[in-house]
Amino acid sequence: MSELLNKINSPQDMRLLSVEELKKLAQEVRDHITHSVSQTGGHLASNLGVVDLTIAMHYVFDFFDDKLLWDVGHQCYAHKILTGRKDEFENLRKRDGLSGFPSPDESPYDLFSVGHAGTALATAVGMALGAQHKGTNEKVVALVGDASIVNGVSFEALNNMSLVKRQLLVVLNDNSMAIDVTQGAIAKFLSKVRLTHTYEDMRKTTHNILEHLPVIGGRMEGAIKNFTRTLRMAVSPNRLFESMNIPYFGPVDGHDIGSLVKLFRAISELNRPVILHVYTKKGKGFTPADDDPRRFHSTGPFVINGKVEEEPKAGKRIFTDAFSDAMLTLGEADEKVIAITAAMPDGTGLNKFRDEFPDRYYDVGIAESAAVDIAAGLAKQGLKPVVCIYSTFLQRSFDQIFQEISQQNLPVVICIDRAGLVGNDGPTHHGMMDIGFMRMLPNVQIVSPANEAEMKNALTYAVNAGTPVALRYPKDVVSDDQIALPQCQLPFEEGKSVVIRAGAGEIFIVAIGSVLTEAVKSADILNKEGISVGVINARFVKPIDEKIVSLAFQGKTVITVEDHGVACGFGSSVLEMAAKKAQEAGIGVAGRIITLAGPDRFIKAGPRGSQLEEIGVGANSIVETVRKLVVSV
Amino acid sequence: MSELLNKINSPQDMRLLSVEELKKLAQEVRDHITHSVSQTGGHLASNLGVVDLTIAMHYVFDFFDDKLLWDVGHQCYAHKILTGRKDEFENLRKRDGLSGFPSPDESPYDLFSVGHAGTALATAVGMALGAQHKGTNEKVVALVGDASIVNGVSFEALNNMSLVKRQLLVVLNDNSMAIDVTQGAIAKFLSKVRLTHTYEDMRKTTHNILEHLPVIGGRMEGAIKNFTRTLRMAVSPNRLFESMNIPYFGPVDGHDIGSLVKLFRAISELNRPVILHVYTKKGKGFTPADDDPRRFHSTGPFVINGKVEEEPKAGKRIFTDAFSDAMLTLGEADEKVIAITAAMPDGTGLNKFRDEFPDRYYDVGIAESAAVDIAAGLAKQGLKPVVCIYSTFLQRSFDQIFQEISQQNLPVVICIDRAGLVGNDGPTHHGMMDIGFMRMLPNVQIVSPANEAEMKNALTYAVNAGTPVALRYPKDVVSDDQIALPQCQLPFEEGKSVVIRAGAGEIFIVAIGSVLTEAVKSADILNKEGISVGVINARFVKPIDEKIVSLAFQGKTVITVEDHGVACGFGSSVLEMAAKKAQEAGIGVAGRIITLAGPDRFIKAGPRGSQLEEIGVGANSIVETVRKLVVSV
Repeated sequence: MSELLNKINSPQDMRLLSVEELKKLAQEVRDHITHSVSQTGGHLASNLGVVDLTIAMHYVFDFFDDKLLWDVGHQCYAHKILTGRKDEFENLRKRDGLSGFPSPDESPYDLFSVGHAGTALATAVGMALGAQHKGTNEKVVALVGDASIVNGVSFEALNNMSLVKRQLLVVLNDNSMAIDVTQGAIAKFLSKVRLTHTYEDMRKTTHNILEHLPVIGGRMEGAIKNFTRTLRMAVSPNRLFESMNIPYFGPVDGHDIGSLVKLFRAISELNRPVILHVYTKKGKGFTPADDDPRRFHSTGPFVINGKVEEEPKAGKRIFTDAFSDAMLTLGEADEKVIAITAAMPDGTGLNKFRDEFPDRYYDVGIAESAAVDIAAGLAKQGLKPVVCIYSTFLQRSFDQIFQEISQQNLPVVICIDRAGLVGNDGPTHHGMMDIGFMRMLPNVQIVSPANEAEMKNALTYAVNAGTPVALRYPKDVVSDDQIALPQCQLPFEEGKSVVIRAGAGEIFIVAIGSVLTEAVKSADILNKEGISVGVINARFVKPIDEKIVSLAFQGKTVITVEDHGVACGFGSSVLEMAAKKAQEAGIGVAGRIITLAGPDRFIKAGPRGSQLEEIGVGANSIVETVRKLVVSV
Repeated sequence: MSELLNKINSPQDMRLLSVEELKKLAQEVRDHITHSVSQTGGHLASNLGVVDLTIAMHYVFDFFDDKLLWDVGHQCYAHKILTGRKDEFENLRKRDGLSGFPSPDESPYDLFSVGHAGTALATAVGMALGAQHKGTNEKVVALVGDASIVNGVSFEALNNMSLVKRQLLVVLNDNSMAIDVTQGAIAKFLSKVRLTHTYEDMRKTTHNILEHLPVIGGRMEGAIKNFTRTLRMAVSPNRLFESMNIPYFGPVDGHDIGSLVKLFRAISELNRPVILHVYTKKGKGFTPADDDPRRFHSTGPFVINGKVEEEPKAGKRIFTDAFSDAMLTLGEADEKVIAITAAMPDGTGLNKFRDEFPDRYYDVGIAESAAVDIAAGLAKQGLKPVVCIYSTFLQRSFDQIFQEISQQNLPVVICIDRAGLVGNDGPTHHGMMDIGFMRMLPNVQIVSPANEAEMKNALTYAVNAGTPVALRYPKDVVSDDQIALPQCQLPFEEGKSVVIRAGAGEIFIVAIGSVLTEAVKSADILNKEGISVGVINARFVKPIDEKIVSLAFQGKTVITVEDHGVACGFGSSVLEMAAKKAQEAGIGVAGRIITLAGPDRFIKAGPRGSQLEEIGVGANSIVETVRKLVVSV
């Protein structure tokens, strides 16, 4: 079955194969990926799409010395399999298993641990400049998709690429589809190119490139000019790149390994940055993914049977579902509500809103910075924009939130999905800083719903607050504690927490957001042990409820619990307020404030539940903390 | 002298003038700006450059209803003068005077308070979409410079401009020069266009546009096509914009008011987003600024005598000077040191390094995100990049610092100039959040030099730390306390503070960075009153010296002093560490921790010294705090 792949323990082994054998290897790699992802879940379609490309790159370049930069990096599976990690591949995205993204911890073939879009071109420019300074000869190759190249950082890098006075190859992997439908003018332009370009055209283009590029040295500038002259496309992407002074080659077939090998050999001899535009097909070689690449962009485990059975559904609602439905309700109630996403309609759950209110929905592509500014403009016009962006991607919008939202005090609602620990996606996606960077901003309020009922209440509050409101929630199952926690049915009031359990009145667990569930669980366990603790649902990070701090001044013990880093987090803001109050009143804090939150290091991929325990905010960890406390008192 | 201007109290008044009179008015506005800026200081050259353009815009549009979006906004002086603020203009950039940037607090004609580049296009898209939703007919106009349009956010907005299905005019104000020399391929491309384009060509282009565009309605698409067909430029910017599907018109003369009025009238009838490319000359109409626009980009007060006398120099070294010289020394000692700026060689003081080591210096233009990623690539190649970016502009790089620097633990030095309060530049430029957003990042150390000697020591430490280090310092005079503070001569050691004054041992002022000077001053004043306080120079925000926290556990009073917001600041991290220590040891804090830092609101423009007092970290404020404390004890 995998007779060739079995022998490949490093790219060197692969280089012993003939080009014909590479094609067979490609199928074996595809099978390996499909089989493995059917067990573990992961990104499937995009990875199947770049198998041929990856094999051709590793055949021509030696990325032990040469530098390969992945953009986003979720399409690196074939690369991992070919660089000595095929056996560990079955532990993809598992605790202590392989990361779903490139990871320097795993292999010298992975240069940057990535996960966010648009950075490969800029880091490639940096590495090429570094080689230029050192006078070393390694090749630098950056692989970027059509969805990533329109990101602002990519553009800034393209605009600065001419700083590089040596070889640098940008491979534009155009699979004509971003995570959802690619947005924006450039995407439409590229798709127009694709529509006017036949398979035969691609063969001719490949031929033209190879004809005009001397394999070693030769008069490069002349060769580039000669090739450009032969471009006969009605709509040529060259127009896009020529104003940036980057020679453009393509489009060529990204599944024709033989041609790719020749093209890489020829083009990598060019002593300057160039772009090679390749067409690939998401899901290539696995019919179901080929037919429905969107379904297989990021998938859970599934059954391979030619047709694919439904993936075993967890069957549980997540916070994103709750948000998705709450947005629908709001959209119906208020025509001023407008939804904005940055290339994540499915991931954020805004797809329902889009389908219901297509004219009040905008997808700006992977452009988080612009998304926030567009929302600011809409708010300035009196509308009620709701921007939904994952926590770590929102880091891209920090300065826009500062200048266009906070300074203008514009009522934009910023929904922060994937806030806190995200489980298997790992460090690049854990949202451990959003409380910190948002709570420094004047005028901005921060709320965090604890469950299904609160999502609705929090969103309703946010949309009508008349001031910027950030609303954070995790990638997790949403609990429906309507009966157990009737207090969560109450409307949100500015800066007001709600008491969930009164307790014996000495120790209070103050939770913000979804970890309220952990707090309540811990209180139940402790109760059975005869330790009665109070539980408070903070609801607001900012403005924070002064009552929480008052408890500490009354000699109580306050334990804050949050799914965020300890630095600059919710607990930290409780400490700040206590210090302020102590200074103003000229008194000390009689009781104690204990802040449970994430440490000053990156948390590895793994199940979210165990990650919560690892950082001390899971139910068992909270119980431990309280037990120690009770003993020490 | 100002016979026309005297009568203009709003744009309506101006619309009573003939086009011939507008030309005279333009000269009066120029004189008003030159005279006023000679008294107050401010941006001169760029403002003189857009006077004609501004007059033409206000003549055609009614920006009481129509929307005018300024990019960066430092070129809004003529706009302020024409919108009823000509008399207040003499208090430009003064406390309680006019802001140097657009400010909604001052006038309904100012929509967004801005100061950072690249946001006007995105907010304009948002406002146009807003009008589209509401069905209102106001015109939306965004004015963006050639240095700003290459910013990533601008590009994201251009790529999304086709979301707008109504009028939206982008005026590309091309003065062929960013703050320093414009960087990047697009800038070179635009400059090539300019070089091949004569004054006569511009006249023809204007004529062509007016010929093909029907003034009201008409067959627009056909008109655009007809115009495009008449473009006969060897190098046309149309190539740049056509792949983004935005009709392009130009270039035209930005000083020909009569033509501009006609062009605005015709083009604003187009029912879709379009770009009008205008050429202007920085410093136009004031010979010295015309000859040396760089000198007059941002100027202090000066004497108008036709030739301009030297501006009265403060004669004092600032932190930027200390950094500039320290970089030179480091550059000489270590060939691996490479400097990167984002369009601010003069502002950051890296110009000296550039002149001495041109091949180890990169200016990437207004592209802070790419700057950090390029640095990451260089560090990955074993070099020692030093990126220097103003504090609030660095907010643009937050996600890159997270993913490419912190996660990879790459030894990039990030120099944060303009950290803390910046005086007259006001809210968009106050760097009150950099400690917060940097200290959440694992692996990143943060140091802050207090004076000249420490700048050298801190930078030497940072460049050799082998881990990412951020180094923050303010826009302020740098003290040379070599004799007074011999402790500052000591090399920086990881996480070690230095004791400046032992004091009586009960109250310690712990200062980070330049406000050490305020702390020492306050100790001197208090000493005379018989109150002896200790003074500690923290040096490190992260890792923080545990000794500082230990003092509080020993029952002492610790007063932290920082030039940063109280939220997530240095004091906040002291509180966090104390809470952690208390939890671990199972004990309470015996003493007190008082955190002096900026409040949760924006601080207005004014002298930095009084701003420091306003937020409670100036010497007098510290004295007040201690006095109260001593009384209450």
